[in-house]
Amino acid sequence: VAHPGGHLSITALIGVPEVSPGDNLAGIVAGIAPRFERGDIVVVSSKVVSKAEGREVRDRDRADVVADETVEVVAQRGELTIARTRHGLVLAAAGVDSSNVASGSLLPLPLDPDESARRIRAGLQTTRDVTLGVVISDTAGRPWRVGQTDIAIGVAGVTPVVDHSGTLDRHGNLLHVTAPAVADEIAAAAELVMPKAGGTPFALVRGLGHLVTDDDGPGAVAIVRPVAEDLFRHGSFDE
Amino acid sequence: VAHPGGHLSITALIGVPEVSPGDNLAGIVAGIAPRFERGDIVVVSSKVVSKAEGREVRDRDRADVVADETVEVVAQRGELTIARTRHGLVLAAAGVDSSNVASGSLLPLPLDPDESARRIRAGLQTTRDVTLGVVISDTAGRPWRVGQTDIAIGVAGVTPVVDHSGTLDRHGNLLHVTAPAVADEIAAAAELVMPKAGGTPFALVRGLGHLVTDDDGPGAVAIVRPVAEDLFRHGSFDE
Repeated sequence: VAHPGGHLSITALIGVPEVSPGDNLAGIVAGIAPRFERGDIVVVSSKVVSKAEGREVRDRDRADVVADETVEVVAQRGELTIARTRHGLVLAAAGVDSSNVASGSLLPLPLDPDESARRIRAGLQTTRDVTLGVVISDTAGRPWRVGQTDIAIGVAGVTPVVDHSGTLDRHGNLLHVTAPAVADEIAAAAELVMPKAGGTPFALVRGLGHLVTDDDGPGAVAIVRPVAEDLFRHGSFDE
Repeated sequence: VAHPGGHLSITALIGVPEVSPGDNLAGIVAGIAPRFERGDIVVVSSKVVSKAEGREVRDRDRADVVADETVEVVAQRGELTIARTRHGLVLAAAGVDSSNVASGSLLPLPLDPDESARRIRAGLQTTRDVTLGVVISDTAGRPWRVGQTDIAIGVAGVTPVVDHSGTLDRHGNLLHVTAPAVADEIAAAAELVMPKAGGTPFALVRGLGHLVTDDDGPGAVAIVRPVAEDLFRHGSFDE
């Protein structure tokens, strides 16, 4: 019943050990994943990437850690800070997480999530000898919308944004501004099988092989809107 | 290999006829969908809902149609207007679409997408005698991010946002601000199998029965952040 690209499946990978600094995530995924098929995409929670990369900090003031990760405060209300990170991401607490870590610990984002994605991808492809994509996901709030969705903060081997500029719809109209941020949609989709209570930091997405590329591609930085193109930039957020 | 909620599949429903005003979408979906299982979620593109509800307009000035749909202009640059609609959605051109319609036609959003979702759900559940959820999706840009993702603008029988307030993670930390907007994530996931060139306005999501409710629930209005809680509201967008 499915046309090409018309079906996908997402499966949480279970049996994940607690991840420690220095752990080889590609090795962990290869150890628990069943069979891979060409064009599979592995979604990895940024949290385990940060843990494996030794980013966890203990006994430090949360505000200081958030400040270290902050390039620009975008909005602030009470204890909530929305900040632009070194990656260009706009996230609550600059992406510093205090859930799913030991009490008293804080977990900033990976330093270079695209590089992390490339490293995990290379490890998996070497182990399994198959072309795969890797998406590193994190959780982001949105202006105007309640709640959060997961987005892609690191990408390797997956087209991050499909640009339909210049293609025609079925009625012959140009799809001039249509550019689905598919890597973000993949991260959001995977969140649906990755419970927030933790323990399921990996998911396998199958059926999107047309979005998987031989080279690593531009990465998730291609989904970061340059500040100069930000329609919503302004001087003052305090109201 | 999957734990409960640890696997989902999404399938585009093919064989959709061109939709015309007055068409019964539940009947169309029931005619092309294979078997339904309890807890399936049907994702419907807002475009076919608008068409079936007779929202298509011809030979009218685009700016006028956009103005009719606009409650507040949120940002503007050149010909691009980002506007808040009567639904509280913040969308380019107030959600007025000129793709996948006949040349010269324009397609505003459904007047009440939650009501549309409830009607489609009731029709499907009567026809197939099974508890299902319905999500009506539309495409939205984001500040700070390149490209668009699909979001839920109408919801019936699906929990729109899962509030984890008060629950504990595996380390005993409170997940106090975690509230995944799962209906938006479902819409985003379904977009991955619904090509922008059109012809695939329905998708079947299976495996999220824990998010499907007996009653219709609060709908997608529950995902609209009240303007008073908008951290990013400010006086001037022209720069």
